[in-house]
Amino acid sequence: VGTGLIGGSLGLALRRRGWHVSGTDRDPEQARQALALGVLDAIGDDPEAEIVFVATPAAIVAQVASRILGDRRRPDVVVTDVSGVKTSVVGAVGHARFVGGHPMAGSEQVGLAGADPGLFDGAVWVLTPTPQTDLGAYAVVQDVVNDLGAEPIALTPADHDRLVAVVSHVPHLVAATLMNAASTGAQHDAALLRLAAGGFRDMTRVAAGHPGIWPDVCTDNAPAIVAALDGLLADLAVMRDRVAGADRSGLLEVLARASSARRSLPARAARPDDLAEIRVPVPDREGVLAEITSVAGDLGVNIYDIEIAHSSEGNRGVLVLVVERPLAGALRDSLGKLGYPGSVGVLA
Amino acid sequence: VGTGLIGGSLGLALRRRGWHVSGTDRDPEQARQALALGVLDAIGDDPEAEIVFVATPAAIVAQVASRILGDRRRPDVVVTDVSGVKTSVVGAVGHARFVGGHPMAGSEQVGLAGADPGLFDGAVWVLTPTPQTDLGAYAVVQDVVNDLGAEPIALTPADHDRLVAVVSHVPHLVAATLMNAASTGAQHDAALLRLAAGGFRDMTRVAAGHPGIWPDVCTDNAPAIVAALDGLLADLAVMRDRVAGADRSGLLEVLARASSARRSLPARAARPDDLAEIRVPVPDREGVLAEITSVAGDLGVNIYDIEIAHSSEGNRGVLVLVVERPLAGALRDSLGKLGYPGSVGVLA
Repeated sequence: VGTGLIGGSLGLALRRRGWHVSGTDRDPEQARQALALGVLDAIGDDPEAEIVFVATPAAIVAQVASRILGDRRRPDVVVTDVSGVKTSVVGAVGHARFVGGHPMAGSEQVGLAGADPGLFDGAVWVLTPTPQTDLGAYAVVQDVVNDLGAEPIALTPADHDRLVAVVSHVPHLVAATLMNAASTGAQHDAALLRLAAGGFRDMTRVAAGHPGIWPDVCTDNAPAIVAALDGLLADLAVMRDRVAGADRSGLLEVLARASSARRSLPARAARPDDLAEIRVPVPDREGVLAEITSVAGDLGVNIYDIEIAHSSEGNRGVLVLVVERPLAGALRDSLGKLGYPGSVGVLA
Repeated sequence: VGTGLIGGSLGLALRRRGWHVSGTDRDPEQARQALALGVLDAIGDDPEAEIVFVATPAAIVAQVASRILGDRRRPDVVVTDVSGVKTSVVGAVGHARFVGGHPMAGSEQVGLAGADPGLFDGAVWVLTPTPQTDLGAYAVVQDVVNDLGAEPIALTPADHDRLVAVVSHVPHLVAATLMNAASTGAQHDAALLRLAAGGFRDMTRVAAGHPGIWPDVCTDNAPAIVAALDGLLADLAVMRDRVAGADRSGLLEVLARASSARRSLPARAARPDDLAEIRVPVPDREGVLAEITSVAGDLGVNIYDIEIAHSSEGNRGVLVLVVERPLAGALRDSLGKLGYPGSVGVLA
């Protein structure tokens, strides 16, 4: 539902992997263009669809998702979304077969014309299960995300929103502010923008993005953004005082720390070959999935695959998690402390 | 003098263009490496050198430049530098044959190992003539900058420092602050840095740079940096209040303005084919060059070539400026208003 930049990219990527993709857009002409561009196999709302991606503007995601989940013809349909703030949407839908999602991928391009089947290659794709989330529904979404070449990572909706405020929303607002300051300055000094070298261009690139989504993002995630902006304002005030006070050692310390941190920022890696399997006997009850995936998220462990092998009798099963081998031991140990002792096996 | 990232890149680029390059470094082993890497033709201080680039740490540029300019064996040597703040250095040297310079090019790399002969291709290279600057010395530096494939642009030292605070120094400090905030947050949430998508990576890339130059930059350019930081803090406080107050139209306005400005940020263009020549009769006296190049800088007009054709008699000459054709008329008109009426001719 929705054939803009993300929806269009999803259609192209899914069809390339052999999925049959039906889709709609509130603008019928755009849906026709999507069909013509190979984003869709068919225009329309297919009641047989296994999974529905809601890629509409954030303001109507909950309404669209709830309508589909309430359709009696679709008792098993799984619905996910791609909006950038999760607490509000996930809370508003509140359904076991809705799995909030946020592909951490974007482009300077806007709309269907920017659709790119490679947009999600290697991107982190956050999924936000809650204690109510159905394990089967979660596994369906995760499988598709894996199939798209992205890396699913589970976080609570609140953790997601707090973290994206720090690494995405506030940086975007800062980029826009820097760009506007330079642009205003350039009205008096035409040379100013000619001095803008690669670093300035890099720092302001995201500000070129379509501004239309930001009122929604800033409203939906206001508490986390305000907290992160307050932190940034305090940090910049310290920096300003160090410059004004010629505090050379203080400046060196903060810049050396940043240099070291930036150099160790993990590159967006391809999916590792070196995977391990953790098998954890679990009770077959609600909430276990969210609990376990949250532990993995807290440890920074990416779950590449997940399934539950139910026992033929009784109310227990075995949860199978496929994770990067170097981190498997740490995750097993953390799960053991939570009362879920498991074993690690190496995948060939 | 100095075979680090910039000095090393200069040596490689100059030698590739047929210059004979001698050089020194305070670390003799690094000078030997520079020789081995093809950065230098010879180690040493060549008294026959036509031009000397001082590419040492900023703190000793003035001392090194003054020593060379005071050498009686070198009555015609031209000296320039590559440091990032100009008022202090240009004032400290105060010599007609010293032309302050600042190539707006850099790299995440550090030191000689990062030297790259293409570092200056298409880069803006600010030159900061003063009323005392010798026209011949200026022309020598400008010719070399042009030969290196960079675009020379003339600004007063003070204008340079004010503008780079806005487009370079403050953005760098902001990048470091964002990186440190994320890094600190990641100590509690290991998932945080995995959510850092391309936008965050772009915004913090410059922070990976070698921190060692920043205490000098921040000290030398403190007034301009503090002023620009104060402006940024005020702008970000407005942004924070708009987010906290759910001021959707205010947020949309500021982000739409930034998006539009970023999209119209000129790409770092190759040197245009479409050049024009302005011929301006000028009195043969000090200060005319700085006055005219400042006008060009204020208009954002790049001067690709400059020469002065002296009259065979009298104390006047004709200044010839080669500029981009679309801007030639505006520059001629501005010079006319200053009392320098000239004519525009088209170059084949």
